[in-house]
Formats: sequence, structure tokens, C-alpha cells
Amino acid sequence: MATTTRVRERFLLACRRQPVDATPVWFMRQAGRYLPEYRRLRGDTDVLSLTRDPEAAAEVALQPVRRMDVDAAILFSDIMVPIAAVGVDVRIVANQGPTLAEPFRSDADVARLRPLEPPEDVPYTLETIRILLGELAVPLIGFAGAPFTLASYLVEGAPSRDHARTKALMHGRPETWRALMVALCDHVVLPYLRAQIAAGVHAVQLFDSWAGALDPDDYREHVLPWSRRILESLAAEGVPLIHFGTGTGELLAMMREAGADVVGVDWRTPLDVAWERVGADAGIQGNLDPAALLGPWDVVARKAEAVLMRAGGRPGHVFNLGHGVIPSTPPDHLARLVDLVHQRTAAR
Amino acid sequence: MATTTRVRERFLLACRRQPVDATPVWFMRQAGRYLPEYRRLRGDTDVLSLTRDPEAAAEVALQPVRRMDVDAAILFSDIMVPIAAVGVDVRIVANQGPTLAEPFRSDADVARLRPLEPPEDVPYTLETIRILLGELAVPLIGFAGAPFTLASYLVEGAPSRDHARTKALMHGRPETWRALMVALCDHVVLPYLRAQIAAGVHAVQLFDSWAGALDPDDYREHVLPWSRRILESLAAEGVPLIHFGTGTGELLAMMREAGADVVGVDWRTPLDVAWERVGADAGIQGNLDPAALLGPWDVVARKAEAVLMRAGGRPGHVFNLGHGVIPSTPPDHLARLVDLVHQRTAAR
Repeated sequence: MATTTRVRERFLLACRRQPVDATPVWFMRQAGRYLPEYRRLRGDTDVLSLTRDPEAAAEVALQPVRRMDVDAAILFSDIMVPIAAVGVDVRIVANQGPTLAEPFRSDADVARLRPLEPPEDVPYTLETIRILLGELAVPLIGFAGAPFTLASYLVEGAPSRDHARTKALMHGRPETWRALMVALCDHVVLPYLRAQIAAGVHAVQLFDSWAGALDPDDYREHVLPWSRRILESLAAEGVPLIHFGTGTGELLAMMREAGADVVGVDWRTPLDVAWERVGADAGIQGNLDPAALLGPWDVVARKAEAVLMRAGGRPGHVFNLGHGVIPSTPPDHLARLVDLVHQRTAAR
Repeated sequence: MATTTRVRERFLLACRRQPVDATPVWFMRQAGRYLPEYRRLRGDTDVLSLTRDPEAAAEVALQPVRRMDVDAAILFSDIMVPIAAVGVDVRIVANQGPTLAEPFRSDADVARLRPLEPPEDVPYTLETIRILLGELAVPLIGFAGAPFTLASYLVEGAPSRDHARTKALMHGRPETWRALMVALCDHVVLPYLRAQIAAGVHAVQLFDSWAGALDPDDYREHVLPWSRRILESLAAEGVPLIHFGTGTGELLAMMREAGADVVGVDWRTPLDVAWERVGADAGIQGNLDPAALLGPWDVVARKAEAVLMRAGGRPGHVFNLGHGVIPSTPPDHLARLVDLVHQRTAAR
């Protein structure tokens, strides 16, 4: 495992609620379509193919780090990579998201999730990490999708607004749901994240992007135990664990309870309110509305300062957007935003 | 204006936080695709055409009232009806939602919203109300879309997950945004709702379905003033005003502040938490997850009882789902749910 001493420490210190010289910043989807160099490199290649080309995937992850003074890089991959790697037919449809040729509907489908063998099934991911660790001067964040969000893609077969089939399975066939959750935890997410950590990533983020679609009772009964199974299993690995979803205002305390060191929050909940719900013994990541970046710079600056004011200079804040960078975002806004956060927080 | 004395009073009493013999129930989209008789009546007709046929639209609104013991009917219409009625080319695309041939992007587009003249522009809506008032033994709820949600459809040109163009306009061209909001309030929503009230609807619901996409600062600055303009203008009309959106956990207090008598809440926020945010001097409507209705009856019953427990028997609760009925919902589940709510709350 790579040592963390040679990379800039600010992000990792903040994840552990240690004092920092300035608030660390990174952006979800900082490697992506808003960057012209990404669009040039990618051309007509689909995302999954790009993630399977270690040189290209490493280059994509490095692009934002070259342009901006971000305090962490994130592995360029997709939450469906380990699902595809165990043989499920997944495609990432442009402007739509992951779609499955045969959505999961029955107990028999659960068996399609055979145990991931990282060295054989995702060698490109491990090689991408190796290349990046040789290049980066900031920490590298690995990631995976959380069981609920992965299950939603598997069961719906395509991105869904109401997650109706997923919830119907959860309520109507609890044993199938349980089997699906166990398989996602033990066959997919845990081996995938353990392999990333063994390869040297400095932190991991567990994306439960769609958990906010659930009512808090359902989250507690049908989702929290499985997120906890993952986060608690990884606690001994010694890397910070970030747990993020959108629309999770009422779930934040449970996301912390699941075992997150840092809870990511979207823009809907003011950062101070979110931190109070998460508790002072956890870090917080967020939470500027990514759509605000489409406005003029003075709006971006004003809203970023509001986020910093709500963080109140307390150790444990990682500045980020409340969700991924929107493809039409001007790259210069993001670069200026990094500098603004550093300057305002270093001045204190 | 029709008298309210001949209809069942329970729903209107609850809207005014008066004691009731049982908690009133209605469902958003109770008239719709989940009903086989709706699908038969509609056939291949598009929704906007159906709303322009008063006999058919009235029949659709009556269908759920015949099947179930709901305590209110809702006008069968669409929030884009008054937009289309002033000449904007809107289509409701199946399984997708409203789309515009020419989305709103400039100041010139705002001028496309000429003042609605209800007797000439929406005679079918007024005739539908007239027919329904002659048939119904429960109150009739009229409705309109709120300015933000209507603006999102106009600016995006189609349903959007991130509402990015809408927010870019709001932040980048505040004067255009203001002009658009004024036109939506004064040329569209207010004349449309005033005409519905004059025609005799017993209550109105202002749907700000997508307001939950906003951060609370943006809501307060760019949206609340316009929702307030509508609700305050209607306060003197004497009918209960319900204000609803999804994902609005952090906006509930402001939705009340805008002038709602009853605030509708989705399933993401527990009803007791929501009511505390709204304040004891307002009613609350909600909030069972519509996707729970796709599960077995015992799950529906358990979750409905949790909602009732959180309402605590306080006057001012209108039972509803947290969003519209999902088309794959079994109609019998809804009918049983109405009876369950009545029985459990009458027993107290």
C-alpha cells in the first residue's frame, strides 16, 4: 500500500477532522465532460471502454489536477464497472445513464452476481490506480456504488425517477431483496473497494446517489444494514470513508451511523443544518449546487462563501459540490472556486 | 360560486384545522392511468385533448370517487393547460412529460405569455368544473402549477433532473427571471386560479413539484416571492390554499410563509418532523410513499399507520400520498387505504 506522506495532506487531515492550512476542495465528476481535453481524449469511446484503458483512465483523472489546485483526485471509473466485470450486460447510454439488457427481477437473477475477483475481473482499475499513484501529488479517492443505488440500476434496468420496481421488490419480496443486498455487498462492493485500498487509494467514497428516494423508515430497515456492512468491514483498513447521496436531508444521521467518517451532502440542506444532523464527531463534504456554476462568477463566489460561513471554520469540512459537475460548466469557474476556497479559509 | 354546505365537509374542515369525524383522504393523480376505466376512456387521446373535452374530463375526475370513499375530488387537468391556452406550443409526451417545441430562452420569449382570458382561453376547464359541481358529494380541488415549476418546463423544454438551464437563467439574467415570474403569476396562474374559484372549486392546490431542486437561499430569493404573490392574492377568496412540492424538506417553513393554509409534504420527511417545520398554525397534507402501494397490503397498512401515528390525531391533517399515484398501483390498495385511514382515525 502506498504511503500517504508524499501527497498533500490537507484532504486526509480534514477527513479526520484535524486542523488544516486551508479547507480542501475536490469536485465530484471533476474528471469529465465539462473539460474540452476530456472530450477530445474520449472521442466516440463509451465510458466503460474508457475505464478499461488504464493509460486513458489515468490521464482523464489527471486532467482536472493539472488545470486546478484541487486537493484530491478521484479514480476515473463508473459505479457499474464491477457489475459489468462479473458478467452483467450493462451499457452506459449517452445522456441517459446505465441500462441493462436484462434487468434483475427474480431470485435467479441474484445468482448472476458471481464473486468479483479483482486481479482477473478489474485488472485495468488496479493498473489505473498504480499509474495514478506514480503521478499524483494529492491523495487519490477510490469509490464504489452503494448496494441500494446499484440495486436500483439492476432492478429498474435504466435510470428511474421513482425507483418503483426497486421499492416493489424491497417491500414485496424481502428475501430476494436481502439476497440481492448480500450479493452486492459481499460479491461486488467489498471485494472491489478492498482491492482499490490494497492498490493504494488514500480514501474511498461510497456513492448511494439515489438513497434520497427512500422514506427514512425504509432506509433504516432495508438499506442502512447493508451500507453499514460495507463501511464497518472497511473500518480496519485505515482509509477515510466518505458516504454520499442526493436528497438525503433526513437520512444524514443514519448515513453517519452506517460508519462513514465523512458524510457528503447535496445543496438542498444548508451545510450547518446537515452537520448538526450528522453530528460533530464526523466530517462533512459539500455542498454548493452544481447548477450555480452555470451562473456568473459573482453568484458562484457569493454562494461558495455562504457554504464556508456555514462550515464555520470547524475542522472536518471538505469543500465539494452537492453533486457531480454538470457538463455545461465553464472550467474556469471551477478553477477560480478552488482558489477562492483556499484563500478564504487560509486567511482565517 | 357553489355553496360548500351540500358536500361532505371533512376535507375542508381539516384544511382549516377544525376537528373532524375522521381524517380526510384524497390522492394526487387519483384520476389517472392506474385505473382501467381511465385507460379505456382515454384510449389514444393525448392528455391535453382530454382536458379540453369537459364531459370526458369530468368523467375522469369522477372515476376514483365512484370507486373509493375519498373525501375530495380533483379537477382533471394538467399544469401546462393554461400555458398551452395562451398559445405556447406544448405537448405532453407519453412516459416523459411536457415538452416545448420552442423552449423559453430570452426576454422575447416572456412576451409569449399573453394574459389568460379564462372564458375564452379555458372554457373547457370552467365547463368541467360546472359539470363536476353538479355531480359531486365531496369538495372539488382546483389547481395550478407554481411559477418555478412552470418556468422549469418552459426553460428546459422538457422534464429535467438538474433544472440546470432554469437555474442558469435565474442566476445569470435576474431581470429576465423576474419578468418571467411576473408574467407567470399575473398572466397565467392568478387568472387561471381565480377563474376556477369563481366557477366554484372548494379549495386549490398550487403544485411547485420541482421546487425541491433548489437550495434554500435560491428558493427564498428567486421563488418564494412569486409563490407568495399568488397565495396572498388568493387569500381573500376564502378557499383553502394547499401548497405542495417534492424534495422540499428544507423549504417547508418557507412554503407556509408563502401563504399556504396547508403544506403538502412528500414521503422523505417524516410527517411529525414536517409539521414541526411548517408550524402548528398550518395544516399538513401527506405523506405515504406512492411506491409503497406497489408492495403487499400489509406493508401499505403498516406504513399508513406510521403516518397516522406521526400526525398524532391533531386537527389539520389531510391524508395523501407523498406524490402522485404511480400507474402500476393496484386500485384496490388505494380503496382499502381510504377505508383504513377513516377507520383508524374515527376510532379515536
